[in-house]
Amino acid sequence: MSLLIIGSLALDTIETPHGKRDYILGGSANFISASASYFTDGIRVVGTVGYDFPFEEIEFLKSKGIDTQGIVISKKLKTFHWHGVYTADMNARESLITELNVFHSFDPVIPEEFRKSEYVCLGNVDPVIQNKIIKQLYSPELIMIDTMDFWIEGKPENLKSTLSLTNIIVVNDGEARLLTGETNLLLAGKKIMDFGPKIIIIKKGEHGAMLMKDNELFYCPAVPLDKVIDPTGAGDTFAGGFMGWLHRTKNVSFENLKLAVVFGTIMASVVVQDFSLEGLRNVENSLIKSRFKKLKEMTYFNEPEILL
Amino acid sequence: MSLLIIGSLALDTIETPHGKRDYILGGSANFISASASYFTDGIRVVGTVGYDFPFEEIEFLKSKGIDTQGIVISKKLKTFHWHGVYTADMNARESLITELNVFHSFDPVIPEEFRKSEYVCLGNVDPVIQNKIIKQLYSPELIMIDTMDFWIEGKPENLKSTLSLTNIIVVNDGEARLLTGETNLLLAGKKIMDFGPKIIIIKKGEHGAMLMKDNELFYCPAVPLDKVIDPTGAGDTFAGGFMGWLHRTKNVSFENLKLAVVFGTIMASVVVQDFSLEGLRNVENSLIKSRFKKLKEMTYFNEPEILL
Repeated sequence: MSLLIIGSLALDTIETPHGKRDYILGGSANFISASASYFTDGIRVVGTVGYDFPFEEIEFLKSKGIDTQGIVISKKLKTFHWHGVYTADMNARESLITELNVFHSFDPVIPEEFRKSEYVCLGNVDPVIQNKIIKQLYSPELIMIDTMDFWIEGKPENLKSTLSLTNIIVVNDGEARLLTGETNLLLAGKKIMDFGPKIIIIKKGEHGAMLMKDNELFYCPAVPLDKVIDPTGAGDTFAGGFMGWLHRTKNVSFENLKLAVVFGTIMASVVVQDFSLEGLRNVENSLIKSRFKKLKEMTYFNEPEILL
Repeated sequence: MSLLIIGSLALDTIETPHGKRDYILGGSANFISASASYFTDGIRVVGTVGYDFPFEEIEFLKSKGIDTQGIVISKKLKTFHWHGVYTADMNARESLITELNVFHSFDPVIPEEFRKSEYVCLGNVDPVIQNKIIKQLYSPELIMIDTMDFWIEGKPENLKSTLSLTNIIVVNDGEARLLTGETNLLLAGKKIMDFGPKIIIIKKGEHGAMLMKDNELFYCPAVPLDKVIDPTGAGDTFAGGFMGWLHRTKNVSFENLKLAVVFGTIMASVVVQDFSLEGLRNVENSLIKSRFKKLKEMTYFNEPEILL
């Protein structure tokens, strides 16, 4: 079994209240695959980078057991570059610079041996491209999709057509509302199910994440942190932990989907404690276990002996 | 044992996307006491109303077993009136009219037989008045306090002096941040502990509520609702369910505080499904039980057989 991850590999300049870092590693495919690698083998990445990309970072992915032969390196163009500045409370950010560079014409040909991947993560790219990627695959069992406001507003029909081919969507609360026109997240989730994906994850940043499938609902709070350094990639890292756990366990029961949300939440809490994906370089099992225990303790309550 | 509740009794005009209602029952003491009455006996209310107050509403409180002899009725002045308009998503509201009327000079003399109350709920009023109320009591075991941005900004020193006399604070996330200057809620909670109360509840509206005591943390999501009619009084109703459960069980262990948060959350979910406190007129035990089960299911996850 294999888990195919498609997305961006980027060099970001990031400014948060804790400092500024220039041209640090970013991009959805990096965060998703590094995060997933703590849970499962069989990860394959498809993406594109420019001649300026630090190639030791491809070695880093390889060191995590990730098959990187799907990363195409341009000799003429530079790597996708994004410069973002976060507000003081880090709940909002502004894009100062978005240079697509090599990512402008991203329209990947999936290597033949990757087309049989059973599980697929479609990072946030143009839904037309996401669609073309799906069409190249040999009936995958499970497709997870991410998207963003830019595509929801810019290519709603293409996006809906692509969504109809997917099983799981991971979006944030603002995106869920924008996609459906529903303020109420419960109703927004139901509407998204009509578009295709039957498993809905709505991320709410510091307020945690919500999982919906049929009429079942699960809510996982964020791991409480006294310091967040850089929120970049938190959503992708969540998606990586989520899909990594599912791929490892090959079980999409609601009980196991809950655990995938918990592991996604834990990985997101790890990555935001440092810039870029520094936090994902060497995650100790003991850290994942202690945060699992913490989340369990902070959400568990007993049935009282008397109940009214 | 008795639970003393002090706060406003009001007539509100409320506009939400679901309609407008004129001069309907409101005020913190009404919501807190009606909510608490589903959990415990021994409730006593102190407040003041004008000659225009619908006296059948005092009979309503009595019908819930609440001792209302602490409600002073003015022959000259009208009842506190507030007119609020909610935004489309109901996450914000604007005050159109605030007529304090009889509440302007609220400075209650606590009836002698009420001064021995073991548990006390101080609804959101001027911290100077809250302080004077506390001074009249004969060493209560547990004092819960509510406050708001108006007092945090207007009378910070008085508020801190009053907080130092209390055990439990119930505030929303914005108020916790304003009170401490801390964006991070974990750090904000710790700072509030330094002011006095050792049990901190931070309400986050649709995102649920957080309980902190020493280094322990509990997180309870809101009950998911597909329709919210009127959020007025949700926080007070939460406080009533919370304190009602504590007073019934006389147990402030962390495990039991968690349950108090769960029952507060459930009562808040009931009241917002109708205007005013209509939802609190007749709450069936079966509804409380089914929402308890729902919250349990939507937060519970198993320890996996393999954990990495």
